[in-house]
Amino acid sequence: MTIATVARRAGVSRQTVSNVINTPDVVRAETRERVREAIEELGYRVNQAARQMRTGRSRLIAVRIEPARDGINGSVLDRFLHGLTDAAGLAGYRVMLYTADGDADEIATYDELLNAYDLDAFVLTSTHHGDPRTSWLAARDVPFVTFGRPWGAPDTHSWVDIDNAAGTAAATEHLLAAGHRRIGFLGWPAGSGVGDARREGWHRALGPWGSSFEATDSVESGAAGALSLLRAEEPPTALVCASDSLALGALQAARELGRDCAVIGFDDTAVAQAIGLTSVSQPLAEAAARCMGLLAELLDGRAPSFPTTVLLPPSLVVRQTA
Amino acid sequence: MTIATVARRAGVSRQTVSNVINTPDVVRAETRERVREAIEELGYRVNQAARQMRTGRSRLIAVRIEPARDGINGSVLDRFLHGLTDAAGLAGYRVMLYTADGDADEIATYDELLNAYDLDAFVLTSTHHGDPRTSWLAARDVPFVTFGRPWGAPDTHSWVDIDNAAGTAAATEHLLAAGHRRIGFLGWPAGSGVGDARREGWHRALGPWGSSFEATDSVESGAAGALSLLRAEEPPTALVCASDSLALGALQAARELGRDCAVIGFDDTAVAQAIGLTSVSQPLAEAAARCMGLLAELLDGRAPSFPTTVLLPPSLVVRQTA
Repeated sequence: MTIATVARRAGVSRQTVSNVINTPDVVRAETRERVREAIEELGYRVNQAARQMRTGRSRLIAVRIEPARDGINGSVLDRFLHGLTDAAGLAGYRVMLYTADGDADEIATYDELLNAYDLDAFVLTSTHHGDPRTSWLAARDVPFVTFGRPWGAPDTHSWVDIDNAAGTAAATEHLLAAGHRRIGFLGWPAGSGVGDARREGWHRALGPWGSSFEATDSVESGAAGALSLLRAEEPPTALVCASDSLALGALQAARELGRDCAVIGFDDTAVAQAIGLTSVSQPLAEAAARCMGLLAELLDGRAPSFPTTVLLPPSLVVRQTA
Repeated sequence: MTIATVARRAGVSRQTVSNVINTPDVVRAETRERVREAIEELGYRVNQAARQMRTGRSRLIAVRIEPARDGINGSVLDRFLHGLTDAAGLAGYRVMLYTADGDADEIATYDELLNAYDLDAFVLTSTHHGDPRTSWLAARDVPFVTFGRPWGAPDTHSWVDIDNAAGTAAATEHLLAAGHRRIGFLGWPAGSGVGDARREGWHRALGPWGSSFEATDSVESGAAGALSLLRAEEPPTALVCASDSLALGALQAARELGRDCAVIGFDDTAVAQAIGLTSVSQPLAEAAARCMGLLAELLDGRAPSFPTTVLLPPSLVVRQTA
């Protein structure tokens, strides 16, 4: 079975069949449909090796997998990875995994991977201030996109991110609408792009009179932080939290004090679903699909000459705790 | 920097350096140490492409990633994947992901992947009765191991599995020791290897007088199943569940009825940790490392001529609910 067979059946040229497979956007919808029907009728399976020879590409992209974490927030990047593998599969790409311990190790791993495998591109996650990875790849003309904006740096590459500030702003507005006025924030130490954005959204929606507490991202320090806030003279009646882990700690603290306190988490993890925690949900599958879309544009030479940036709005999932 | 430089520094032959990198077991510990020190001092990075040319191998293994699920039990295979990527990295391999919708689609994907990429081996998960994937790979001499035994079929390939029955037996014995006598089981419909094994462990530890209920794996059907068991004339005072999702449903049902009922889940997910659910924990990182170890043996030609089977014991994590 070859592309020629499909072309004959669909009554189009071989180039058109190739376009439908590799750059469907350039083919008219009606023609595309006819070619896809022919592909289906004939049971044609795109031969990757043959395609690679034609296009000079491996259709292999690499992404880092994080060490297994406590399981509450660690699931966020797992969900992104599921979405990326799905989107890559639909676009005819495969995903290769690697692990790395810090930026320097990750850059050394790029070097090793690029020497060893015929990789097309990288998807970078967990961007942060002073991130050296993107300039390393850019200097070597290696195509990549990042899930996460280049914090504190200009947009010199394409990226997809979630509007974290919009998420906590929506959470805070939900609490204001329910009549809360003293709304606290339980967040991470300053300096992390994501954490600062989540704090900023709360601050923007509430104004300058809220109290906040900085904690490392665990249930225990969430509980300790919430205890400290709730024991203040004018304690908050509601808490917006930078993660579901912190929110879970806040719920424990409120229960321990016998206090009614509305709590909203962030990430809409399985734990939030299980315990009825109101939480901000990130559109991770969409973020992954957009990353893949930007990469495909880059690899097909269809990308505009300036970087594309995609900021996706999160949504508030209202359950029992607020 | 080449292998020759390392060999000169360590005062050994090039072959010995190559052995330390590719088949360390065949080198004496003392020599191995000296070569490793030389590698470290010289900052030598094994060049994968060069190694591939020497060994004729890509050092690339493929594993399926499941569609994202409800997040409670879906995390089990994610944890296995993290462990596999870690173990593969240590052994000098990389992991490639693919998705598949059913056995036939997975087999078609093997065909495509083997045509397109120079893959060394597959790791198969979610083995089941009448699984056609293993014989397809075996017929084509493609190296593979399975995480999960060949249910209802002879051991014709190497596998690693968790002793599911031992897990529910331990849970049941824990409840018996606490004085419970009427211990119910909330499990999946008969026919799934894993589900049947979990039921069997409970049955073995308790004897023939327990009541059980079959439910699909969700919080809602767990709650419905538990309600039905708890409304019986002589209701159980404790429930062993085939998953944390079912256990969460059981807890909801007991609360709804205002009934005290001990509950034990399976998988020790983040949800179990968050709500204090006693649960059976699978040694997933170890299972992944053992899979990688068996594969490395196969690929290095060090495997015995008969299949190796590894059955790992799970452990009970006791929290508040039992």
